[in-house]
Amino acid sequence: MTLKMTIPEIHAFLDEVFPQVHNRFNVTTLPEMGATVEMRISESDLRPGGTVSGPAMFALADVAFYIATLAMIGPKALTVTTSCTINFMRKPAPTDLRAEARILKLGRSLSVGDVTLYSKGLDKPVAHASVTYSIPPSK
Amino acid sequence: MTLKMTIPEIHAFLDEVFPQVHNRFNVTTLPEMGATVEMRISESDLRPGGTVSGPAMFALADVAFYIATLAMIGPKALTVTTSCTINFMRKPAPTDLRAEARILKLGRSLSVGDVTLYSKGLDKPVAHASVTYSIPPSK
Amino acid sequence: MTLKMTIPEIHAFLDEVFPQVHNRFNVTTLPEMGATVEMRISESDLRPGGTVSGPAMFALADVAFYIATLAMIGPKALTVTTSCTINFMRKPAPTDLRAEARILKLGRSLSVGDVTLYSKGLDKPVAHASVTYSIPPSK
Amino acid sequence: MTLKMTIPEIHAFLDEVFPQVHNRFNVTTLPEMGATVEMRISESDLRPGGTVSGPAMFALADVAFYIATLAMIGPKALTVTTSCTINFMRKPAPTDLRAEARILKLGRSLSVGDVTLYSKGLDKPVAHASVTYSIPPSK
Repeated sequence: MTLKMTIPEIHAFLDEVFPQVHNRFNVTTLPEMGATVEMRISESDLRPGGTVSGPAMFALADVAFYIATLAMIGPKALTVTTSCTINFMRKPAPTDLRAEARILKLGRSLSVGDVTLYSKGLDKPVAHASVTYSIPPSK
Repeated sequence: MTLKMTIPEIHAFLDEVFPQVHNRFNVTTLPEMGATVEMRISESDLRPGGTVSGPAMFALADVAFYIATLAMIGPKALTVTTSCTINFMRKPAPTDLRAEARILKLGRSLSVGDVTLYSKGLDKPVAHASVTYSIPPSK
Repeated sequence: MTLKMTIPEIHAFLDEVFPQVHNRFNVTTLPEMGATVEMRISESDLRPGGTVSGPAMFALADVAFYIATLAMIGPKALTVTTSCTINFMRKPAPTDLRAEARILKLGRSLSVGDVTLYSKGLDKPVAHASVTYSIPPSK
Repeated sequence: MTLKMTIPEIHAFLDEVFPQVHNRFNVTTLPEMGATVEMRISESDLRPGGTVSGPAMFALADVAFYIATLAMIGPKALTVTTSCTINFMRKPAPTDLRAEARILKLGRSLSVGDVTLYSKGLDKPVAHASVTYSIPPSK
């Protein structure tokens, strides 16, 4: 297996299909079957008590696994999340987040794996997600 | 068991603790151990192909279960999601969403249940979430 | 949609494909898109403190959703579980269990829904599962 | 953090509290915050087509995470599963299974992490579980 997309290609693709999240996500490493993705936290992601909202963490887990999968299969925009289980483990700091996505199975119709989320610069995870994406059939 | 908050009290509380989502969520019915909550979909929630994003659906499931729980226990803002499993079942229409939250167990430290999501006006669910919230201890 | 299997047909099918669990499961009602299934608890399912083991509850949730799905699609033995999230909510009594399975989406390749588990005779649920089955393609 | 139980102590504890599964599980390595556990597959765990049942895989994931947690906190039998999400990824071979459990957060009242399951001798995982255990309060 070799990667079908580079980091610049992933960034260009995200800008094209999700223009409303332009510059929110930054892919920092893209090995086979995985991805490290950072998310810039904005005011609207914060919650009282100085923490990051659950939906913001979900959004990062979701996009990080999407990126890891697209890098392996190429730019199929219709690859969609079918399920996600997220366990919130520690209150995140009000800072940018980092996601480590890992594909455990890449089949023809499903990509299955997990994502561990960290507050940037800290080494204890704030959340862990199990994710399944459905891959559209090739023509 | 009786409800500890009314619909107007819930709306006022959401405005206070989540000012950035003002008017996004509308509680329509609030029976014991449940809640029906509508979410106004905005441009930034939409995805190519005319559908609603996964994180937007997650946000609605999360807040609907939060509301159902707060109505039973009172306004404890530090009640936080500990886990959520969401299965995406059908592509939602690019319209407002409706969530039906149901508490299956309300203990002293955990509230556990599920939320079924619909595109407003349609009767087949678009997603289903199992949710657990942690309730802070009373003083 | 009409049912493709009756309760006696389901029982005969289970005996054929899972002979090792003969008489363990009893389908009591079989409406469209759902099933009520009871499980006989044996000594090996019990745990210290007089409760039923987690794996026994998982087994019932799994088979109840399998039965609800097969009743809709016919006896396709290769229909397999792809994911299950189970929340354990109350300590079950050391008695038989009852499962209420509900299909929320029946597609060509996936059946998605949930199962609520009860200690027989009691009305507060002991566990709740979200389940996805993969349906093999028709020839 | 140091381990509070050794492998022989774990085996003796399992025999005491789960006598019905005597010799079914074998802990092979026990580092901090994790455990590798093998399960002997018996005839009753097999399914038509020569594979291992979902409930058997669930049982292994559940016990492996229990063992990893007890090794850190000591022999508290009332530590119980509160939730488990299991994704089944590949059909297991009809052979013994191996589980790699990893604790991602060990708090006072919850232990949260994941377990990856393998057919013994093969290196692609057959299933992956996210697990949460509730830890009883110390007196």
